[in-house]
Amino acid sequence: MAMIGGGPGAFIGPVHRLAAELDREIELVAGVFSSDARRSKAAADVYLIDPERAYGSLDEMFTAEKARGDGIDFVSIVTPNHNHLLSAKAALAAGLPVICDKPVTASLSEARELAGVLADTGLTFCLTHTYTGYPLVREMKARIAAGELGEIRKVVVEYPQGWLSHPAEGKQAEWRVDPSRAGAGGCIGDIGTHAFSLAEFATGLKITRLLADLGAVVPGRKLDDDVSVLLRFENGARGVLLASQIELGELNGLRIRVYGDKAGIRWRQEYPNQLELLHGDGRQEIINAGTDVLGPWAASRSRTPGGHPEGYLEAFANIYRDFAALLRGDHAPLLPGIEDGLRGMAFIETAVSASAQKAGWVDLEV
Amino acid sequence: MAMIGGGPGAFIGPVHRLAAELDREIELVAGVFSSDARRSKAAADVYLIDPERAYGSLDEMFTAEKARGDGIDFVSIVTPNHNHLLSAKAALAAGLPVICDKPVTASLSEARELAGVLADTGLTFCLTHTYTGYPLVREMKARIAAGELGEIRKVVVEYPQGWLSHPAEGKQAEWRVDPSRAGAGGCIGDIGTHAFSLAEFATGLKITRLLADLGAVVPGRKLDDDVSVLLRFENGARGVLLASQIELGELNGLRIRVYGDKAGIRWRQEYPNQLELLHGDGRQEIINAGTDVLGPWAASRSRTPGGHPEGYLEAFANIYRDFAALLRGDHAPLLPGIEDGLRGMAFIETAVSASAQKAGWVDLEV
Amino acid sequence: MAMIGGGPGAFIGPVHRLAAELDREIELVAGVFSSDARRSKAAADVYLIDPERAYGSLDEMFTAEKARGDGIDFVSIVTPNHNHLLSAKAALAAGLPVICDKPVTASLSEARELAGVLADTGLTFCLTHTYTGYPLVREMKARIAAGELGEIRKVVVEYPQGWLSHPAEGKQAEWRVDPSRAGAGGCIGDIGTHAFSLAEFATGLKITRLLADLGAVVPGRKLDDDVSVLLRFENGARGVLLASQIELGELNGLRIRVYGDKAGIRWRQEYPNQLELLHGDGRQEIINAGTDVLGPWAASRSRTPGGHPEGYLEAFANIYRDFAALLRGDHAPLLPGIEDGLRGMAFIETAVSASAQKAGWVDLEV
Amino acid sequence: MAMIGGGPGAFIGPVHRLAAELDREIELVAGVFSSDARRSKAAADVYLIDPERAYGSLDEMFTAEKARGDGIDFVSIVTPNHNHLLSAKAALAAGLPVICDKPVTASLSEARELAGVLADTGLTFCLTHTYTGYPLVREMKARIAAGELGEIRKVVVEYPQGWLSHPAEGKQAEWRVDPSRAGAGGCIGDIGTHAFSLAEFATGLKITRLLADLGAVVPGRKLDDDVSVLLRFENGARGVLLASQIELGELNGLRIRVYGDKAGIRWRQEYPNQLELLHGDGRQEIINAGTDVLGPWAASRSRTPGGHPEGYLEAFANIYRDFAALLRGDHAPLLPGIEDGLRGMAFIETAVSASAQKAGWVDLEV
Repeated sequence: MAMIGGGPGAFIGPVHRLAAELDREIELVAGVFSSDARRSKAAADVYLIDPERAYGSLDEMFTAEKARGDGIDFVSIVTPNHNHLLSAKAALAAGLPVICDKPVTASLSEARELAGVLADTGLTFCLTHTYTGYPLVREMKARIAAGELGEIRKVVVEYPQGWLSHPAEGKQAEWRVDPSRAGAGGCIGDIGTHAFSLAEFATGLKITRLLADLGAVVPGRKLDDDVSVLLRFENGARGVLLASQIELGELNGLRIRVYGDKAGIRWRQEYPNQLELLHGDGRQEIINAGTDVLGPWAASRSRTPGGHPEGYLEAFANIYRDFAALLRGDHAPLLPGIEDGLRGMAFIETAVSASAQKAGWVDLEV
Repeated sequence: MAMIGGGPGAFIGPVHRLAAELDREIELVAGVFSSDARRSKAAADVYLIDPERAYGSLDEMFTAEKARGDGIDFVSIVTPNHNHLLSAKAALAAGLPVICDKPVTASLSEARELAGVLADTGLTFCLTHTYTGYPLVREMKARIAAGELGEIRKVVVEYPQGWLSHPAEGKQAEWRVDPSRAGAGGCIGDIGTHAFSLAEFATGLKITRLLADLGAVVPGRKLDDDVSVLLRFENGARGVLLASQIELGELNGLRIRVYGDKAGIRWRQEYPNQLELLHGDGRQEIINAGTDVLGPWAASRSRTPGGHPEGYLEAFANIYRDFAALLRGDHAPLLPGIEDGLRGMAFIETAVSASAQKAGWVDLEV
Repeated sequence: MAMIGGGPGAFIGPVHRLAAELDREIELVAGVFSSDARRSKAAADVYLIDPERAYGSLDEMFTAEKARGDGIDFVSIVTPNHNHLLSAKAALAAGLPVICDKPVTASLSEARELAGVLADTGLTFCLTHTYTGYPLVREMKARIAAGELGEIRKVVVEYPQGWLSHPAEGKQAEWRVDPSRAGAGGCIGDIGTHAFSLAEFATGLKITRLLADLGAVVPGRKLDDDVSVLLRFENGARGVLLASQIELGELNGLRIRVYGDKAGIRWRQEYPNQLELLHGDGRQEIINAGTDVLGPWAASRSRTPGGHPEGYLEAFANIYRDFAALLRGDHAPLLPGIEDGLRGMAFIETAVSASAQKAGWVDLEV
Repeated sequence: MAMIGGGPGAFIGPVHRLAAELDREIELVAGVFSSDARRSKAAADVYLIDPERAYGSLDEMFTAEKARGDGIDFVSIVTPNHNHLLSAKAALAAGLPVICDKPVTASLSEARELAGVLADTGLTFCLTHTYTGYPLVREMKARIAAGELGEIRKVVVEYPQGWLSHPAEGKQAEWRVDPSRAGAGGCIGDIGTHAFSLAEFATGLKITRLLADLGAVVPGRKLDDDVSVLLRFENGARGVLLASQIELGELNGLRIRVYGDKAGIRWRQEYPNQLELLHGDGRQEIINAGTDVLGPWAASRSRTPGGHPEGYLEAFANIYRDFAALLRGDHAPLLPGIEDGLRGMAFIETAVSASAQKAGWVDLEV
């Protein structure tokens, strides 16, 4: 695997590397870690790879790797959003499958362009919606699909963070609040799409209408940092999606609760190893990760027995494990792909535009 | 104290009695527990009061009690909403202060009528927004008022319940889903007002604009049973209010979180003896009820030391204790009154109407 | 009801009053709140009772009350331990039933003397092991009795507190660390007996052997403030009882966990409205107070529906409600009595003596 | 790195591999995964290593690896306990450092023999007490060392599990309950040593005396499966260590609480990303992993920011990261070594023997 992006100071680059390599099916061997060749070389030290394979440009990399007998098999894209399309197209043009951080591109039209290229090339593409990799999220999906909750009526998905409560400082914060690098959405693109994707993934239902209220709370901020969206799902279920990066003191509080006419279910990312099934009679049933009670989707993506907590990196690694399976030709039915990317971008653009225009309820069209 | 309503099968009547009498300053001695005289007498047994003082009509009660040397000093109204105004006016006409369950009346115009009568009579009136009686809610209010959170930016108040997930059965459920007895609002009147009141109480800020999305999820239901409202506060802070009675498996999950530019704070009714103060550096500080760290508002309304949990009845009793203090001429600055009732009714009617008309953002005018 | 003890500054007196009166079957009307007549009168104000019925001595009270038509029906004893026997004997001699704070007396020989008097008079006696009054403790007992856990193998009961971490200050602390008022046991008498009683109550099994390790950690302290006891139950089950008053920062953390060969169960006093049933397959089932899933023992002693937390006072009130039932001639099978008092005193004395003598395992004989 | 043990069906082998490789400083390239050469080869597939380097005996491996230019640098031992000494001695004889699963050997005398060999060879040795690798355990150690708790008075360490509640089935269970492979201790060796090590690691205090009560609860079991040990630390602090494998429904509930004369602290392995600091005034301060509030020991061994949970594998990887640092000549002051192994074995043997002889309090001598 080669990485595009993830140079010095990056958060998500090292996370992708750890996640990709966790199950030892994948190895990071090359990269364009920065568009500055010197910085790209510097990253080679951090990642412990051969400095010769830390390139200063995409062209250079694809050319050099193609020439090697042991060249790269696929590309992982972890740049800021505005470079996703360019990077992905270059990789696909080189005949390489792509795994890409979310959101898929900086705009829906870019996402459509990418979808077109993918359709033409027939190459594999995966979008790393990390949170869908948690075993108990998959268990939740399995139980909902099996009808344990009955007909779904209500979904509440919340994603509180507080780390952008003040004017941005540091590399992580800066590009996220800059429209030229993050795209039209701030918080909604950075974490709102995770919440959106989680809601559709867990329920197996598509969101068809929404009413969005985005705000830029921190003085001087150009992009949204606080998001409230009311939802309707294809089956008529009602929903609420909340995401914020100015809820001071919150860390990474993604959580979801889904209610049907037979039962309810709750999951929280910060305590990912327990899933709560709510029965109408006053009983809450806690399902523990790594135990005998799990179905195959969760069981096959756990690495430790019950009570030995797994976390964010293991969830991320499940995305890569599924991607590797797909490259091998195996079945990986839970892996998010370009379709999810298109839906996520449509969500961002529809919400941003509807909020700016105070448009009320609008259709979500991909 | 006399009670109006709270006859056989009632939930809230016995709760009011327990709460009123907990601190022994108040005693239930009379009542019109039902408009059916026989049922009213039957209630006397349950409440262990003199059956002679269980009356079949308001007139009968006020006449008889006035004639006694030890007649009632005030009235507690616990009927379904549509009887609040009538009952309150009768009590006030008899020269008696009133403590009344929420929402204050069945409509805003009724609430205004009641406010007029109160202005004319100068009598004391209290609205039992129970949850404002919890010591740690008062501590939250105190800390926000003292500036510990800085400028308030965001409020999320949620009130999930699941007990009306199916077509209503039983006395408790029936009147709540019947517009002729509950008024225009279902869930929004029953529990949405609690959430509204809690948000304004805790922050000390008034809600000035809202966007409401109410739904009737259970087939055949005439009133709303699922509520999402986006909020703006007078200082510009953003907010979200969610209330539902069809989130199957949820019990009485009222909770609030408030974020300023210095810190955040969280409280949950189901675990009422802990308040969480969120610091931006990764520390959450848990404040325990009954301990030395509390300010006077919380400390003066606790009955047990730290680790000896207090609950719903004690919170309710604090409302009555404040009411008794007010009757004695003492200061009770935290007690909800007619102003809160007017605001609550305006909230219900504005939200119901705005949702029905898909009006988008509207002003909340009292 | 008359109270003996509970004068100015007392913690447990007001708690008994609240608990006794909560269900309105009992009213505090008289008392010897202090052996100092003036202080006893002063208490009348606090308790809002007729000052004429606040007496300066037991004799005075029993004589005066006997002479009234509306004299007291029973006595509640809330003095420090060394006055329990004297007070109880006086009440019984006056023909009155007794409800008494724990531990029952200051010594096992006193407890035996009291048991003799009770046998002679045939009067009702109750020991207020408050924690056995929690609805979910009773649910736990019911489920264990019904065999849901299978054969009991292991019991861990812990009671961490931290409030005596420093040399005692204040009325509450002083008598508890003074052997002349508290008896031979400090922490073991004050809270260790609660843990002992809870373990026997919940499991329905008697403790037959123990190995005790008591320490006085705070410099200069004369009585134990930190207690570890290993246990054996009559069926051979193994157990551990830990109690401490020097675990700084702990509030009132009584908790119990019981394991059989079919399932386990856990309960914590600080979160008393949830009971956890542990299944061997990775599921934990949370049973919520006030819901439909409870058996009759728990359901009949709840006052609020699920999600409306009940607390310490309500648990305490259940003891009084059972006592009132017994006085009326009803069945109250879960009420702790003199037998529990004898066992508790035997536990204290056996543990204190075995620890002092480093006796290893000893039999617990009553 | 080469692995000894960890063949088909093993739990801990794959965990060691994941942990060792997580930070990419170490790679598993060889092993004697089983003493059966065919099974050892089979493991090569699972571990994705060159089958030529999956050997059938220690001799074969050390000879072959020595002959390679890219031969192994150290050995990881993950066999059942009775093979630790033999494996370690062979590796040390081949001049290779060793990292070894706990307990260090099957007996204290074996551990002393190993200590002697280590002293002679001067090679590096590490014992994988996994739980000391959690960042917040290291934060706890740092805060205790800095005096935040004051003088330590009390330590309670508990390790409840339930998975051996029934007669053993499966490879994992069988050797643990067989004295010929596990050594003299069952539960006390398997998890009691973890609890022992955690208590000494966190407090920085040595345990000097103990009183042990070990039981074999499951019918027919030859080794202990339920352990209670009373402790004294070198400074006089009192302690309790509980470990059990028959607490049905418990998963991997290792937890520790430490109390000083200034504050208390609590940590639980199943929720490893939060550390609770208890203040005497009613405040509990929760310290979140990955946040700014951590000291260098914790911060330098975290891989994700606050709210992105890390788990068991990451803790384990910290042990390997420290080991790698030590091999590079860096400082790794928190790494458990042979001294901890000796103390752990002394703990097991002293406790087993004292319990069997009902010896009461005994000294813990290494």
